[in-house]
Amino acid sequence: MIFQRTAVIGIGLIGGSFALAGREAGVLGEVVGVARSERTLLEAVHFGAADRTTADAAVAVRDADLVYIATPVAAISAVMAQIAPSLKPGCVVTDAGSTKLGVMQAAAELLPPHAHFVGGHPMAGSERGGVAEARSHLFHGRTYLLTPTPGSDDALARLRELVIAIGARPVVVDAQSHDRIVARTSHLPHIAAAALCLALGDNVLQRDFIGAGLRDTTRIAEGPVEVWREILMTNATEVLGALDEFIAATERYRDAVASADEEEITRLLDEARAARQRMGES
Amino acid sequence: MIFQRTAVIGIGLIGGSFALAGREAGVLGEVVGVARSERTLLEAVHFGAADRTTADAAVAVRDADLVYIATPVAAISAVMAQIAPSLKPGCVVTDAGSTKLGVMQAAAELLPPHAHFVGGHPMAGSERGGVAEARSHLFHGRTYLLTPTPGSDDALARLRELVIAIGARPVVVDAQSHDRIVARTSHLPHIAAAALCLALGDNVLQRDFIGAGLRDTTRIAEGPVEVWREILMTNATEVLGALDEFIAATERYRDAVASADEEEITRLLDEARAARQRMGES
Repeated sequence: MIFQRTAVIGIGLIGGSFALAGREAGVLGEVVGVARSERTLLEAVHFGAADRTTADAAVAVRDADLVYIATPVAAISAVMAQIAPSLKPGCVVTDAGSTKLGVMQAAAELLPPHAHFVGGHPMAGSERGGVAEARSHLFHGRTYLLTPTPGSDDALARLRELVIAIGARPVVVDAQSHDRIVARTSHLPHIAAAALCLALGDNVLQRDFIGAGLRDTTRIAEGPVEVWREILMTNATEVLGALDEFIAATERYRDAVASADEEEITRLLDEARAARQRMGES
Repeated sequence: MIFQRTAVIGIGLIGGSFALAGREAGVLGEVVGVARSERTLLEAVHFGAADRTTADAAVAVRDADLVYIATPVAAISAVMAQIAPSLKPGCVVTDAGSTKLGVMQAAAELLPPHAHFVGGHPMAGSERGGVAEARSHLFHGRTYLLTPTPGSDDALARLRELVIAIGARPVVVDAQSHDRIVARTSHLPHIAAAALCLALGDNVLQRDFIGAGLRDTTRIAEGPVEVWREILMTNATEVLGALDEFIAATERYRDAVASADEEEITRLLDEARAARQRMGES
């Protein structure tokens, strides 16, 4: 047992899976689920993700040793403001948001010094499938990024142990590096795929011409709009930097094609191919 | 039997698979294989793709009812100039290049009026795997694009029949539409994937942050450089048009993120998602 009592705020796919996994692994004790909808609260108990529920986050955290905030990332700071006065001294607070710098700043401003915050980003199922879709194996084999705050060493150690217990691989990274890297490895590819879909226009209907390459390249553009809107809004600075680098790279190809520069085209294709190969296969 | 005697010029993966498939289906009679390397010629006979071979394309086409040009696209016009004086009256000439307008123009300029040209683009295995990799089922279930020339109705009808016989699906399209559409459904995605790889820089080494989304989006950037260089060189005009549309679409995302315009970000993500869904799954 790592935490006797846990409050999961926003007990949907991620929060529910976390609770199921932690209970199954024997590292979480009692779980109190929090959600706004009555139906979610009933389902959380029905599917075994929570022992009891409440619609009031402040009530839920009162005796909690661990507070797990799994709401949409844009709602996290409001949750922090709401729960701050009720947090128990020594409790550990973490979240499951896909961007981290804003969350870390909110935690520094809003949480009391007697609570220990460590940011979290489980790289698993970003779609909001609801608690009925929650599975204890959701995090198996996945990377679980953790962004510590000053003085959170003990909380970080306990969360690392917990992450390992639920089958994931903890990776510690500072929040700024996190947001800079995911802007490039996750957010930029999403925009590239989406922009490609826009640029295709009515050609998306040319089924005879659509092969596996185009399908692969655009697949992620089908991701949930509200999740991606929040990600782009909360990581705007890094996303803009990544986009400028991407537009510059695309313009290098355009210029090489426009000037029929065979050597430069070869160089650019070679460089991209080598980069893709360095990425490795999973 | 649709063609008694066929010359396959550039008998590698595509040309060899075409010969194997046509012979297996009983629609091609004798096949004469042409390649520059002695080893390829030996392999073409060894693997059953050709009955006999020669390094001289002009000799090969002398008695041919069908001439199948499966060289790299940049070499097609040189092959046409070489074989033109030796083509038999009434013979059908086709190719397997990934871009079509340049090939059609070369055919109009270089081939004699007594030869009937129809452009071809089998959407299968673009990598130059060599004749040892040739398989009779390579075209099974694939789209086989055919671009007719004026007065080629009879040749087109025979090639359609042949394409169906080897298990592929013939789709007739004019050369200009072909190049405009593939610039968007095939060539643009390749550049987007390649530019993404370049923009990632050293982040390609951040294995902990690299998920299925990024891998899918960049997969095609591993394609063979020489094939893609030729495609971009021979379809430059359409590729430039597609690239400008793509850069404009990417800039719409950038502007929306830069101005934190939540509504516009939602609209752009929604539009892309709907376009991807209209593409359908294969």
